[in-house]
Amino acid sequence: MKKLINAPDAVLTESLAGFAAAHADIVLLGAEHKFVRRRDLRPGKVALISGGGSGHEPLHAGFVGRGMLDAACPGQVFTSPTPDQMVAAVEAVETGGGCLFIVKNYEGDVMNFQMAAEIAGKEVATVVTDDDVAVEKSTWSTGRRGVAGTLIVEKIVGAAAEQGAALSQLQALGEQVNGRTRSMGVALTSCIVPAAGKPTFALDENQMEMGVGIHGEPGRRRVALASADTIADEMVDAIVRDLAPRAGAEALLLVNGFGGTPTMELYLMVHSALRVLRGKGLRVSRFLTGSYVTSLEMAGCSITVSLLDDALMNLWDAPVHTAALRWGI
Amino acid sequence: MKKLINAPDAVLTESLAGFAAAHADIVLLGAEHKFVRRRDLRPGKVALISGGGSGHEPLHAGFVGRGMLDAACPGQVFTSPTPDQMVAAVEAVETGGGCLFIVKNYEGDVMNFQMAAEIAGKEVATVVTDDDVAVEKSTWSTGRRGVAGTLIVEKIVGAAAEQGAALSQLQALGEQVNGRTRSMGVALTSCIVPAAGKPTFALDENQMEMGVGIHGEPGRRRVALASADTIADEMVDAIVRDLAPRAGAEALLLVNGFGGTPTMELYLMVHSALRVLRGKGLRVSRFLTGSYVTSLEMAGCSITVSLLDDALMNLWDAPVHTAALRWGI
Repeated sequence: MKKLINAPDAVLTESLAGFAAAHADIVLLGAEHKFVRRRDLRPGKVALISGGGSGHEPLHAGFVGRGMLDAACPGQVFTSPTPDQMVAAVEAVETGGGCLFIVKNYEGDVMNFQMAAEIAGKEVATVVTDDDVAVEKSTWSTGRRGVAGTLIVEKIVGAAAEQGAALSQLQALGEQVNGRTRSMGVALTSCIVPAAGKPTFALDENQMEMGVGIHGEPGRRRVALASADTIADEMVDAIVRDLAPRAGAEALLLVNGFGGTPTMELYLMVHSALRVLRGKGLRVSRFLTGSYVTSLEMAGCSITVSLLDDALMNLWDAPVHTAALRWGI
Repeated sequence: MKKLINAPDAVLTESLAGFAAAHADIVLLGAEHKFVRRRDLRPGKVALISGGGSGHEPLHAGFVGRGMLDAACPGQVFTSPTPDQMVAAVEAVETGGGCLFIVKNYEGDVMNFQMAAEIAGKEVATVVTDDDVAVEKSTWSTGRRGVAGTLIVEKIVGAAAEQGAALSQLQALGEQVNGRTRSMGVALTSCIVPAAGKPTFALDENQMEMGVGIHGEPGRRRVALASADTIADEMVDAIVRDLAPRAGAEALLLVNGFGGTPTMELYLMVHSALRVLRGKGLRVSRFLTGSYVTSLEMAGCSITVSLLDDALMNLWDAPVHTAALRWGI
């Protein structure tokens, strides 16, 4: 196992300490590393809280800040955060407007956020994201998995919260965006969980996992390594078939690296995906390209398409100031 | 070779096409892919032009935009751009204020930018960056290599250019920042050049290359894989020994991933490097963490320390709007 670490059981706390030091203008680290919170809270604003297993950085802590999340609760690598983490986060960032939990659809996450909502003693609503079209159920999920599209939900709902929307409106908005967003991924190599010390799954030198999950969960099938164009054809086709957009619909394209794929290849995938999307009559008017929802050092990428109308585009374009996404500020 | 590509000889053009499409609000792609230029030029401003072999994305095209570069000339992977590329870029973006070339210290780059300066028919000055303390000469360099510190030079000189500084002032500023900036890297795995199809160098499962170059050039020595703290001790010590800062000096810390290293590990390295820097009496007041000057899919990172006074910090903080660095706009 080749990693820049000290000891497997110190990876999370040391990484969070580095993150909090590097972004001290934006975030504060909660006691016992239970959460990363936004430094400057706005009284009365609905508090947005997300979280999940670590190893997907910059998701979620990298999206804490003005215009996006108020707190993120990091579990151990690929392990759900515990309810006490979310309860502590609610106590720290709820300022009278209630809380919205944004939760990726994995059984442990859903259960632990649900328990936290019940014991937090504040008004809490929840949006569960499930944008992955690859499989209908998976190793740790009943129903579809929540993957890279989650950041689009967090960005758009975060912008609306900043503009003063109420909790019920934000919950409806989150569900709307999740419903307009689909993703699919491909892995060329496995990730290695530090505590395990060996690859989560094995791929031969000429194989890829089509439809992989962000923890290395199996996808649709294991096939021979294909060209970027062939991969884009299959992934975009699965996404668009499921989204069933009207002709000429406007879309945001997110090409997301899983951690071990260079930027050069991600932009090449943008080129491939764009060709397919345009061929299907979609107008891509917003782009995000980079490694935002990762699986440790896994090589591969996901493609996410989100159908955004003018109002949603405006919320996407609204100012944001986090470690990983920043514009307009 | 596991890459998200179509054909090795199409990697650069397809990746540039994806980049230009994704960032059409910021950049334009020159004819025959000779350069990536800033869309909106400012008449009379000194034009900043950089470039070099591809495979280091987002360097340099990702730094084209307001507050940073006016154009970047991409060579083939790990291959210098040809003089006609820089001449075409000068023609496209010089608006009466002259041109500053920012060139990493590799023989091919230095020679080709020099030839371009001679035939461009405009006033051109050049800053050569050589921030890598690992070795005094290397495979493709006479003298030290220019590595991740180059982006700090580009950012600070770019801000000063935006504020109206003259060509001679910008050249002096670039040399000043380069002189205050040092870097060193470590590789855990090799990169694979698409046209070669195999690793540039071989490392055993328990080995790392200490002092590696950004093309996989040999560093100081090949040693057993060490902890993040041990790596940070050696790299920061080499950097600070060479910089010889006064006690209490203020610094910017850049922890740069080489392409295959997850964000989680980069922040862990921030934690390790910060401990060493503070132990040596430096005050780290600015941070940049991410994969900005990469070596395709190489796993590993570099640490860069730049000693910035108040004036330089202000230029670092000044607004920038590029694909890879954005704040204040």
